[in-house]
Amino acid sequence: MKASVLTVGDEILIGQIVDTNSSRIAQWLGEQGISVSEMRSTGDTREAIVNALDELFAACDLVIITGGLGPTKDDITKHTLAGYFGATRMVVHEPTLQHVTELLRRRGIALGELNRNQALAPDVCEPLLNLSGTAPGMWFEKNGKLAVSLPGVPYEMEYLMANEVIPRLKKRFALGKVYHKNIITAGIPESTLAETIAAWENDLPGYLRLAYLPSLSGVKLRLSCYAADAHANVADEVAERVRQLRALIPAHIAGYDNDTLEGVVGRLLKARGATLSTAESCTGGRIAAIITAQPGASAYFRGSIVAYSNDVKVKELGAQPDDVEKYGAVSQAVVEQMARGAQRALQTDYAVATSGIAGPDGGTPEKPVGTVWVAVATPQKVTSHKLNLGSDRERTILRASYSVLNLLRLALADGSSS
Amino acid sequence: MKASVLTVGDEILIGQIVDTNSSRIAQWLGEQGISVSEMRSTGDTREAIVNALDELFAACDLVIITGGLGPTKDDITKHTLAGYFGATRMVVHEPTLQHVTELLRRRGIALGELNRNQALAPDVCEPLLNLSGTAPGMWFEKNGKLAVSLPGVPYEMEYLMANEVIPRLKKRFALGKVYHKNIITAGIPESTLAETIAAWENDLPGYLRLAYLPSLSGVKLRLSCYAADAHANVADEVAERVRQLRALIPAHIAGYDNDTLEGVVGRLLKARGATLSTAESCTGGRIAAIITAQPGASAYFRGSIVAYSNDVKVKELGAQPDDVEKYGAVSQAVVEQMARGAQRALQTDYAVATSGIAGPDGGTPEKPVGTVWVAVATPQKVTSHKLNLGSDRERTILRASYSVLNLLRLALADGSSS
Repeated sequence: MKASVLTVGDEILIGQIVDTNSSRIAQWLGEQGISVSEMRSTGDTREAIVNALDELFAACDLVIITGGLGPTKDDITKHTLAGYFGATRMVVHEPTLQHVTELLRRRGIALGELNRNQALAPDVCEPLLNLSGTAPGMWFEKNGKLAVSLPGVPYEMEYLMANEVIPRLKKRFALGKVYHKNIITAGIPESTLAETIAAWENDLPGYLRLAYLPSLSGVKLRLSCYAADAHANVADEVAERVRQLRALIPAHIAGYDNDTLEGVVGRLLKARGATLSTAESCTGGRIAAIITAQPGASAYFRGSIVAYSNDVKVKELGAQPDDVEKYGAVSQAVVEQMARGAQRALQTDYAVATSGIAGPDGGTPEKPVGTVWVAVATPQKVTSHKLNLGSDRERTILRASYSVLNLLRLALADGSSS
Repeated sequence: MKASVLTVGDEILIGQIVDTNSSRIAQWLGEQGISVSEMRSTGDTREAIVNALDELFAACDLVIITGGLGPTKDDITKHTLAGYFGATRMVVHEPTLQHVTELLRRRGIALGELNRNQALAPDVCEPLLNLSGTAPGMWFEKNGKLAVSLPGVPYEMEYLMANEVIPRLKKRFALGKVYHKNIITAGIPESTLAETIAAWENDLPGYLRLAYLPSLSGVKLRLSCYAADAHANVADEVAERVRQLRALIPAHIAGYDNDTLEGVVGRLLKARGATLSTAESCTGGRIAAIITAQPGASAYFRGSIVAYSNDVKVKELGAQPDDVEKYGAVSQAVVEQMARGAQRALQTDYAVATSGIAGPDGGTPEKPVGTVWVAVATPQKVTSHKLNLGSDRERTILRASYSVLNLLRLALADGSSS
C-alpha cells in the first residue's frame, strides 16, 4: 500500500521552520508496512491544497496532511477539505467541545467563539479527538481515497498518529500484523558492519527485511516482518537470527528496540549502583549534556569538569604540568590523568575524559584537526584510545562524545561478566 | 519570481533522515526575493523524477534539485535530467576531474573509474564545480525552464548555492538588488515583541518588509528591501529604522546580521580580555557545549563545573550545606554560591550558574517542573533570576541555557558603558 504526506504552511516554504513531521509520519507508516511515495509542502491557499490533493491522489490512495489547523488559518485547510470531499455543513464535534471546555475551565477561562469554531468539523468527515491540543484531526474518505488531516504541532500530530490514525488504518486496510526488532549497534561504521554481516544478511528468509538506519551515535539495524500473521513463529525466528548476529558482532550490539547508547550506559551504571563523571576538553560539556538529557540521570551522574584551559586540567583534574608541557594536552598521558582526576575530584566509580583538536584551528602535522584522545577510568584501571574524526567541528565533538560513551559501555559490560 | 525545491532520495521517504536542505534553499532563495511555492521529496526512480519535474514546471520556472548524485545512485538523477533536457552524450568536466584527481593524489589514491564517472556531465548542462565534494552541480535550461541539480550532502549544497547558484541566478534573472538587515533579539517572547513594536512596524514604508524568525535562542527580525536599486538610500533608511527600533527595545537587541547570542557574548568577553566559566546543575553542561561549539572559544572560556549532585555543588563550588538543606539546591542562595564558586575555582572574571527542575520528576507545588534559578557573577556582583520554563525537559534545558547567556550579555554590555 502506498501513501503520501502533505504539509500545509507558508512558514515551511519560506524556510522558517524545518518540516520534521513528514519524516516521523513516514516512520509511523513504514512500521505498518505502508510506504510513502511522495512528500510535499505547499502554501496556505485553497488552490494549492486542492492541486496537491488532485496530483497526490492520482498516484496513491492515502494522503496524511499536517498543518493549517491553527486558530487563524483554521478555515483554509478545514474548509478546503470540506469542499473537496463534498461536505454540506459543519457540525459540532461534542467530545472535542467538552474536552476544550474542560481545558479552559481548569485555567479559569470561558469558552469563546474561536474555541467553539475549532470544535466544528465537516459533516462528511470522522473527527479524531485530540487530547494533546484543541483542534481535532479529521478522517475523510470518498471513492476509495482517504485523507487524514492532523495539526502541525509535532506532539499533537504524534498523539493522533498513535491513538487514532494507526489503529484506524490497521482496521480499515486489514494491515498484516507487523513485527519489528531494532538492534542498536555502536562503534562500527556502516560499511564495515555491512561487510561483516553480509553472509548473515543474505541468509535471511524473504519475509524478514533488514534496514540500516545510521546516525552519529551509531547504526541501528531494523529487522521487519510485514506479514507476521502468516509466520506463526516470527518472534522465535527473529530471536534466533539476532543470536546469530550477536555472535558476529558481539562487542558492537549496544541494545535493542528503543534503547540509546546513553540510556544503556545509564542502565548499566544503575544496575551496579555505580556513579559516573566526565572530564571534557574538546567535547566542552557535550558528553555531560547527552547524559543529562535523560530523565533520571541524577541516579548515577554526579557531574563534570569541563577543562577547556590547561590550567583547569592541572588545577581541577590533577593533570601533570610536566606531561602537559612534554606531550601536549592532546595526549595519552594527559587524557588518562584527566579521567583519573574526575574520578577522584567528583568521587565517582567511573569517569570518561576527552582531549582533542576540534578545529578549525589548532592542528599540526603530527596532530591534525580531528585528533582526539579519549579515556575511560574504571575502579580497576584506565584505558585510552586515539581517534581521527575529520575536519568538521560539530561532527568531531559529537562523534568523540558517542565514541567515549561506547567505550564506557564496553567497560561496564565487561566488568559485569567478571 | 517563483521556484520549487525537489529532494530526491528514498532515505527521506522512509523517514530515515529529515530533509533540512529544502528549508535552507528556501532561505537562500528568499533572501534574493525568489519565493518557493512548493517543496517535494520523491524516490530514486526515473519515473518519479520526470513526473515531479513535469508537475513542478507547470507552476514555476525554476526547480532546485538536491540528492541522488552519490556514486551509487549517480546514474539515476544525472541520466534522468540528461534525458529530460535532451542531452546527446556525457562529457568530462575538466575542472571537476582535475579537482578530484588532486583530492585523491593528496590522500595517495589513484583515480578510479567511479571517480572519473562523477566528473561526467550531460552535454546540455553547465556543470558547477563543487570544491566541497566530488560530484559537480548541474545547471539545465530549456524553453525558459531552469533546473539546478545539487548534491544532497548539506555542506556541499551550501557551497554550491553560495558560490555558483546564487551568483548565476542574480545574473540570469537580473534580480533586483536585495538588501537585508537582521536584528537579533533575545529575552523577549515573539508576542510581546510584536506588541511592543507594533506602531514602529506599521510605520515602515511599503518597500521594507519585516519577518519574525523565532527560535529557542530568541526572535530574529529581518528587514528586507527586494528593490534596493529603486531606493538609493535604503541602507540609510534601514539604519534609521533600526535606530528607532533600538530605542523601543534597547535591552533586547543582542546583535545584527549573522550574530548569535553565544557569539556576541564571546566577542564582548574578548573585547575586555575577560574570561568565563559555568556552574551547571539542571542544564548539565549544555551551556558549556553551546559556548564551545564556537571556534576560538578557548580565548575566553576556561571551563565548567557540572554539579549534578549536591555533594559536588558543596565540594567543588563551595555551596553552603546549610543553605542546600534549608532552601534546597533550586534556590537563589545556592545558585548564587554556585556562580561565585565557579568564578573562584576556575579563576574567571565572569561565571554563570543554573539550578532547576527539568523534569519530568522532581517537581513540588512550590517548585513545579520548569522552575530554574539562574545567576550571573561579574567581578563586582552576583545577580540571579527565577524562571518558569514549562514541562518539556529538552526545551527547559535549552531555554534556561539561552536565558542565562542573555543575562550575561546584558551584564557585559552594561559594564562596558560604566
